[in-house]
Amino acid sequence: MPFSFEIAATAGPARAGVFSTPHGAVETPAFMPVGTLATVKALDPDDLVAMGASMILGNAYHLHLRPGDELVREMGGLHRFMRWDGPILTDSGGFQVFSLAQLRTINEEGVEFQSHIDGSRRFFTPEVVMQIERNLGADVIMQFDHVIPGQSDEPSARDASERSIRWLARCLAEVNRLESQEPRVPLPPSPFPPQALFPIVQGGIHARLRREAAESIRSMHDWPGFGIGGLSVGEEKDAMYEMIEVVDEALPKTHPRYLMGVGFPEDLVEGIRRGVDLFDCVAPTRMGRNGAVFTRDGRLNIKRAECRTDPRPLDPECDCSACTRFTRAYIRHLFVSDEILGLRLLSLHNVHFLLSLARSARQAILNGDLDSWARDWLSRYRSAAPLTV
Amino acid sequence: MPFSFEIAATAGPARAGVFSTPHGAVETPAFMPVGTLATVKALDPDDLVAMGASMILGNAYHLHLRPGDELVREMGGLHRFMRWDGPILTDSGGFQVFSLAQLRTINEEGVEFQSHIDGSRRFFTPEVVMQIERNLGADVIMQFDHVIPGQSDEPSARDASERSIRWLARCLAEVNRLESQEPRVPLPPSPFPPQALFPIVQGGIHARLRREAAESIRSMHDWPGFGIGGLSVGEEKDAMYEMIEVVDEALPKTHPRYLMGVGFPEDLVEGIRRGVDLFDCVAPTRMGRNGAVFTRDGRLNIKRAECRTDPRPLDPECDCSACTRFTRAYIRHLFVSDEILGLRLLSLHNVHFLLSLARSARQAILNGDLDSWARDWLSRYRSAAPLTV
Repeated sequence: MPFSFEIAATAGPARAGVFSTPHGAVETPAFMPVGTLATVKALDPDDLVAMGASMILGNAYHLHLRPGDELVREMGGLHRFMRWDGPILTDSGGFQVFSLAQLRTINEEGVEFQSHIDGSRRFFTPEVVMQIERNLGADVIMQFDHVIPGQSDEPSARDASERSIRWLARCLAEVNRLESQEPRVPLPPSPFPPQALFPIVQGGIHARLRREAAESIRSMHDWPGFGIGGLSVGEEKDAMYEMIEVVDEALPKTHPRYLMGVGFPEDLVEGIRRGVDLFDCVAPTRMGRNGAVFTRDGRLNIKRAECRTDPRPLDPECDCSACTRFTRAYIRHLFVSDEILGLRLLSLHNVHFLLSLARSARQAILNGDLDSWARDWLSRYRSAAPLTV
Repeated sequence: MPFSFEIAATAGPARAGVFSTPHGAVETPAFMPVGTLATVKALDPDDLVAMGASMILGNAYHLHLRPGDELVREMGGLHRFMRWDGPILTDSGGFQVFSLAQLRTINEEGVEFQSHIDGSRRFFTPEVVMQIERNLGADVIMQFDHVIPGQSDEPSARDASERSIRWLARCLAEVNRLESQEPRVPLPPSPFPPQALFPIVQGGIHARLRREAAESIRSMHDWPGFGIGGLSVGEEKDAMYEMIEVVDEALPKTHPRYLMGVGFPEDLVEGIRRGVDLFDCVAPTRMGRNGAVFTRDGRLNIKRAECRTDPRPLDPECDCSACTRFTRAYIRHLFVSDEILGLRLLSLHNVHFLLSLARSARQAILNGDLDSWARDWLSRYRSAAPLTV
C-alpha cells in the first residue's frame, strides 16, 4: 500500500501517528510548510531538510498559472522541479479561486474566473483540477471544493458543502479515469508514483452540516485521509474549535485528518488536542516577511525600537539556524535595511517554530502528558504581553 | 605580525600568494564578496563558507548610517554582528560619499553631505572615517579618499589624487592616535584585534599621476597592502588595464594589491595577469538580482523565453549549490514569480563563479600556465554570443 496511517499513541482525541506516502513517512501531528509556487517563500529546500520538515505543500491554482502544470510535468513533476524528495500535498486551488481570482462565475459545472496574474479567463471544473494535480504529481491531492466565507449562514453553507460533495464524486471519477488511461508507476525513483485523493469536509460553522458532510463523504469511498476546510476564514476561534470537535467525532479515527490553512501556534496546540494530524499555513513565512516572530513568550515584532540593541536571539530557547547564530539587533538591522537575509531568517525561524511545536506535541502524546504540556505551553505563550505585536 | 603576504609562485606580474590577517588567511588572487550592510545581499554566511569565500567586504558609509558603527561596536564588532569569522575589509565610504550622497560640499577638511537614507547632514573627514572603521573592527580598513569620475581631466584628477594623499597622512595619524589611546588586543577571540590601513592609489586614467601617487604613498609609510582606486568608474577598459600595468610597476612586488570595485569575470582575468591580488564588486549579487548569470560561455539572461523549459543548470560545468540542484527552468520560474529563492540562487551562483574563477587562476599560476589558461578562458567566455545578455 503506497499510503497508510499508523497510530503509535493517543491522548483523548489526539494521536501520535505515522502517515506513509510514496515519498516517505510523516510523523504526525505535523506542520506542513507552504510552497505555493514550488518554493516555501524565502527558504531553500536545504533549510527545510535541516529543520526537519517532512511534508510540504504546493498549490494547483498558482502552479497552473505559473509556470503551468504541464511544464512542471514535462520537467519531471513537482518533486524534481523544486528538488523536494519528501512528500508533497497540493491544494486544489478552491480557496484561491474564491479568494484571489476576479470576476468569478460559479455554476454546477465549475468556476469561471480571471487569472490574478494577467486577467486571462480560465474555467476550473473538478475534472480540470484533477488533471492539473496529476500533472504536478504530488503525493496527496486535494479535491476541488466550493469555499465560502467563514460566517456564511446555513443555507449558503449547505449549498456550498453539498456542491463540494458532488464535485468530490466527479474528482474521484476523473482520478479513476486518468489512472485507467495511464496507470502511475508504484514507487520512486519514478517521478510519478500513485497519488492519494483527499476529500474536504465543509459546512461552515454549522455542526449539523459538518456532520452531514462527513457522513456523505465517508459513505462514498474508502479515502486515505480527510481534509477539514473552510475554517480559520473569519469565524470566531471558539467556533473553529467546536467544528474541529464535531468533525473529529464524525470522521474515522483510523485515518489522518488535515486541518487546511490553519497554523498559528495556539491553533496547532488546540487542533492537536482535538484530533488533527496535519496543518498548513502561510502565516510563518508571511508574518516573517512582515517582521513578526513567533516565540515561546508570544509574538515579537522585530521592528520595535527595543530590538535595536538586543543581543538575544529571536527566541532564546529555539535551536533554529537563525537563533543559534544571530542577535535580534542584527536581524532587526537586516529587516529595517530591506535585506533579503532578514526575510529568510525570520521565515526560517517561524517555520522551524511550528515544526518544532508539532514535534513537542507529538512527544507529549507519546509521553502521556499532552494535557499538562498543552496547558503550560498555552499559558506561557498567552501570558507574556510585553512581547506581543 | 598580524598581517603578512607570502608569494608562492609568480607568472610575469601575476602572483599566487597568501595574505594573512588576524581572522585567517586569504589565498590570492581572490574575489571578495561585498557585504555592504553587514550581509552579502541575498546570501547567508553559511552559503559563503560553503562556496569557499575567505575575505568579505563591509562599507563604512552604509554601516555608519545603518545601523550605526557605534551600535556595531557595542554588539562586539562587525565579525560578531554578522557572524563572519573570516577576514573582513571595510571600504571607507569615499566612493559612496561621491556617488550616492546628496548635496556634497568638499573642502580640504572633508566632505559635508546629506545621508541618502534620511537627508540628515553629515561631515566625513579622514579622522571621522578612521573612527568609524575602528568601531566596525574589520581586519583591513581603507583610507578615506577623494573619488572622481573615470574620465576626469588631468588637473581634476591631480587635485583629487593629491588631496587623497594628504588625507591618507591624516588617516594614518588618526589611526596611530586611536591606537595609542586604546591599543587593540593582538588576536581573536578578542573581537577587536589589530587593523591594517590600506592606502588607495588614485590618479584617474593618467599614468603620470598614478606613478606619482604610488611614489608618494610608498615613501610615507610601510603599508601592509595597497588599494588601487578610481578604476571601473566609466573609463575605457583598455585605459583601466593600462593603469593597472602602470601601478603594478610602481608598487612594491612584496605587498598585496587590491583593485577596488572591479569584478566582472573578464576583469578578474585581466587584472590577475597584471599583478592584482584582491578584487571586489557588487556585480555578481546585483546582476543576479536582475536575472543575469555568469557562465563559462558568457552571460545568460534567465528571463529569456528559451530558459522556460531548459532542463540544464545555469552553467553545466559549475559545482555551486544552485547548479548541482536546479534547472534553468525552475530558476527562471522563481525569478519570473518574484520568489526570493530565485534571487538567492542567482546571487549564489554568480558569487561562486567569481570565487571559483580566482581559484582557477591561482592554480594556473601555480601550474605555470597562466597565459594559456587565461587565453582559453577569455576566448570561450567572449565567443559564445548566443548566451549573451
